[in-house]
Amino acid sequence: VILVNGVEQSVAPAADRGLAYGDGIFRTLAVRDGCPEHWRQHYAKLAHDCVQLRLPAPDEATVTAEVAAICRSQPRCAIKIIVTRGCATRGYALPDTPEPTRIVLGFPLPDYPRKHRERGVHVHLCDLRFAPQPALAGAKHLNRLENVLARAEWNTPHYAEGLVRDTEGNVISGTMSNVFMVDQGCLLTPDLARCGVAGVTRDRVMAAAQRHGMTCRVETVPLERTLECDEIFLVNSLIGIWPVQSLAGRSWRPGENTARMREWLDETEALS
Amino acid sequence: VILVNGVEQSVAPAADRGLAYGDGIFRTLAVRDGCPEHWRQHYAKLAHDCVQLRLPAPDEATVTAEVAAICRSQPRCAIKIIVTRGCATRGYALPDTPEPTRIVLGFPLPDYPRKHRERGVHVHLCDLRFAPQPALAGAKHLNRLENVLARAEWNTPHYAEGLVRDTEGNVISGTMSNVFMVDQGCLLTPDLARCGVAGVTRDRVMAAAQRHGMTCRVETVPLERTLECDEIFLVNSLIGIWPVQSLAGRSWRPGENTARMREWLDETEALS
Repeated sequence: VILVNGVEQSVAPAADRGLAYGDGIFRTLAVRDGCPEHWRQHYAKLAHDCVQLRLPAPDEATVTAEVAAICRSQPRCAIKIIVTRGCATRGYALPDTPEPTRIVLGFPLPDYPRKHRERGVHVHLCDLRFAPQPALAGAKHLNRLENVLARAEWNTPHYAEGLVRDTEGNVISGTMSNVFMVDQGCLLTPDLARCGVAGVTRDRVMAAAQRHGMTCRVETVPLERTLECDEIFLVNSLIGIWPVQSLAGRSWRPGENTARMREWLDETEALS
Repeated sequence: VILVNGVEQSVAPAADRGLAYGDGIFRTLAVRDGCPEHWRQHYAKLAHDCVQLRLPAPDEATVTAEVAAICRSQPRCAIKIIVTRGCATRGYALPDTPEPTRIVLGFPLPDYPRKHRERGVHVHLCDLRFAPQPALAGAKHLNRLENVLARAEWNTPHYAEGLVRDTEGNVISGTMSNVFMVDQGCLLTPDLARCGVAGVTRDRVMAAAQRHGMTCRVETVPLERTLECDEIFLVNSLIGIWPVQSLAGRSWRPGENTARMREWLDETEALS
C-alpha cells in the first residue's frame, strides 16, 4: 500500500524535487501487532528534520491517520514516510509557496536472521568516508548516495552491516544504523554534528541509559578507540539492537551491557 | 512533455531509488532551432557519471531518439534527463539486476535577463560550504541538497547566482554553474576532485582555450585569489557565459577575455 498525499497510488510526480534533488526527508519505522512503534518520537524527528531543511512539516493528525490506515491493512510491516518539497519550477531556488509531497508506504518487515540479534553480526569497515556537512548533519534527508556507495562495498551475506568513518577517521555510524560502544561500563556514541543521521533508536538508547543512571557520552570516537571498547552494538528502528561480533580484525562476544540495554528498551516499549 | 522509460507520462514510481536516495544522475541541456546543443558531449558525460555511480548507462540510440522526439514537439526548450537505479527491494544494497528509470523532459528555456550576458551579474558569496566527497565529486548526481541550501541563502533578484566554497575556503563553483577566472591572460578554474560538478560547458571552455593557445590551469583557487583576478565568469549549458560584475565587495567590468571566450564557444557551435 502506498499513499501519496493521502491517495492510494504507486507513483509520484516525475517533476518532484524529491527526485530531482533529493530535496526532502524520510523515516522508517516498524509496525507490530498493528501498532506503529514509537510513532510520537518518529513524528517529532520528522518535524525536526523538516525544520532543518526549511520544509513545511506535514500536519501530525494527517500523517498519523495515514500511518494508522497502513497499520490496519498490514498489522506487521515496516512503514516508510517520505516528505519532499514537491513540484516546482525548474531550478534550485525554494518555491514561494511550497506544496510538499507526502508519501507513506508499507512494506514487509525485513527478515533478518535471528542470530544477528543473539550472537551478533560481522561488520565490514567501509572505505567510503562521510563528508562533513554541518548544514545537513543529523537529518534523515533524501541525499543518501554515500550510504548507497558504502553499502555497495560488500555483497557477501557474511557482513550484516558496514561501519563508516568521517574524513578524519572517526567512527560515525553504520550504513543504516547508529553505533554505540561500551567502555568500562560507560556508553559512548559518535557526535553527529558534522555528518550522520541521528535516529530515533539512538535517542531511545540515550534516554534509557539516563533513566538507569548509566553514563552516556556523545563525542568524537576514533576507530582505534572503538576497537579497544568492551562492547559495540548497532541500532535502528527495524533491527533493534545487534551486537557487533567482529570488525576490522577484532572480535567480541555479545556483552552484558548490550543485553541490559535491550531489556531497558523493551521496558520502554511496554510503557509507551 | 515527459517520457518515462520512453512512455509519455507525468509520473514515476513512488518506490524509485531516485526518490528514496537520490540514487541517480541528471543532465540539463538547451534545445534551439530543434537541435539539442552539444548532445554528444552531454551523452558522453551522462555515461561517464553512470560509471562513477556503478549505474548501467542507458543506450545512446534510445536516449538520442527520446531527445529528438522532444526537440520535434518543442524546438526551443530545455531538456532534462534523469537516470536512476530504478525500483528495488528496500535498503541501500545495489539490486542484483538493476532496471534503471530513464526520464526525459522538456521545459521552457529559463528567461534570463539579457543584461546578465551583456553587463554581467551580481554574485552572492554563499555561507554554505560544499563538503569534500571524492567518491561523488564531478558527477551531476541527484544528491543536490547542498545546492538547494546554498540557493536558499538569497531571494532578491539582485543576485543572479551564488558562489560556493569548500570547507577550506577554496572557490568551487556557483550553485548552478562552473566558474572561471582570468589572471594575467591565463584561465583558471577550480579543481573538482573533491566536490562540485564538472559540466559540459566547463569542458568546452577548456577545449576552446587549448585550441586558441590560451593557458588554462585547473587548480585550488582560494577566495582571496579569486577576488584579485582580472575577470571572472560563470558558465553552464543554459546560460552560456555570464561575466561576474560583483562579488564580496569587489566589482568588475565585462572583460575582453570573457568576450573572446564567448566568440570561441560560438565558433565551436557553428562547427558542431
